[in-house]
Amino acid sequence: MTKKVAVILSGCGVYDGAEIHESVITLLRLDQRGAQVQCFAPDVAQLHVINHLTGEAMPESRNVLVESARIARGEVKDVREAKAEDFDALIVPGGFGAAKNLSNFAVEGANCTVHPDVLALAEAFAAACKPVGLICISPALAAKIYGPGVVCTIGNDTDTSAAVVQMGGTHEDCDVHDIVEDTQRKLVSTPAYMLATSISEAASGIYKLVDRVLELTHEDDQ
Amino acid sequence: MTKKVAVILSGCGVYDGAEIHESVITLLRLDQRGAQVQCFAPDVAQLHVINHLTGEAMPESRNVLVESARIARGEVKDVREAKAEDFDALIVPGGFGAAKNLSNFAVEGANCTVHPDVLALAEAFAAACKPVGLICISPALAAKIYGPGVVCTIGNDTDTSAAVVQMGGTHEDCDVHDIVEDTQRKLVSTPAYMLATSISEAASGIYKLVDRVLELTHEDDQ
Repeated sequence: MTKKVAVILSGCGVYDGAEIHESVITLLRLDQRGAQVQCFAPDVAQLHVINHLTGEAMPESRNVLVESARIARGEVKDVREAKAEDFDALIVPGGFGAAKNLSNFAVEGANCTVHPDVLALAEAFAAACKPVGLICISPALAAKIYGPGVVCTIGNDTDTSAAVVQMGGTHEDCDVHDIVEDTQRKLVSTPAYMLATSISEAASGIYKLVDRVLELTHEDDQ
Repeated sequence: MTKKVAVILSGCGVYDGAEIHESVITLLRLDQRGAQVQCFAPDVAQLHVINHLTGEAMPESRNVLVESARIARGEVKDVREAKAEDFDALIVPGGFGAAKNLSNFAVEGANCTVHPDVLALAEAFAAACKPVGLICISPALAAKIYGPGVVCTIGNDTDTSAAVVQMGGTHEDCDVHDIVEDTQRKLVSTPAYMLATSISEAASGIYKLVDRVLELTHEDDQ
């Protein structure tokens, strides 16, 4: 049976949106494994726009949903329209967009809040015990979604993992090629570009994450 | 020996720049096969900016080099700095950016001209008989680079293939999973999203193209 997976994008570009390689690799692997994918993004302005050549802020405004449509080739919907009951799993790629547009983690750290529609959707997947995959910096949102005790990884960055712990999460260091799984909550995470020094390194962990998330959707079939 | 490959990007998004999936899949495969990659793009304004959610033009301006940096995670240089002698091969992903920013094929059709720096670089690869890979709509530039008789594919679109022929090219229809090779010129092309109905279909042809381009670089090692 075809599995349906919702993917939340957060713009288009590592420094102010969804990390493009991570997003495309996620979509590629899901498609290769026969999953049916729908992308979503919040219909809000980006925190800011970064010139990816210089790293400096640009004096303009871009919309997260509109920019996410670049990665999704137009096939993206407002995250408000997403219902957990219509999907078997949820995956959130990384990039600063997860910490700047889906939440304000980049600014507030452990005191961050998650965009209400994104939080509501992720909580609905958690409540239904449907598998969720969080990539790169996205696991910083795990404790906000699942509450204290949730197990996840953001690689081995000490500042970020300390913030995860401060929010009530349980952090496990993880190699770029590997995943961490909270078996009780069906939450899978992988460091990707938190650690990757090449696109194929990022892909190795993301492939594992996608494969495991899809495996977990089959547990309900038995 | 590590092979060095130049990749020319044309922005960031299928409707006004480089097709993101094609670009990332190209970078992924090159990295998986151990090639060393440098991205380039022309430092010019995009023809226009398209809202990828609605398909409509947006009243703003974006720079091709700056937007390409999103796909390249900052690691992109002005195409003027590229020298064919520093590389073993060249690959150009598709997206309307190839027909709007690298050339004006989208507006002028068979009467198009190619951006002078892009043309000079591609001609230098051709003159050195170094392998070149053109993906999706990019083979529309082949006749401008190689002159009459060059063999390539843009899939099976009759209007686009007619324009290729009008420019002096020899067009071969090609399946999305396959490549067309001009063995004399070491030019490899594949339809990707000219035909692909899914990202994994696009990937299958692009993987073949990248693998063949890298194989061709080894012919000089013998």
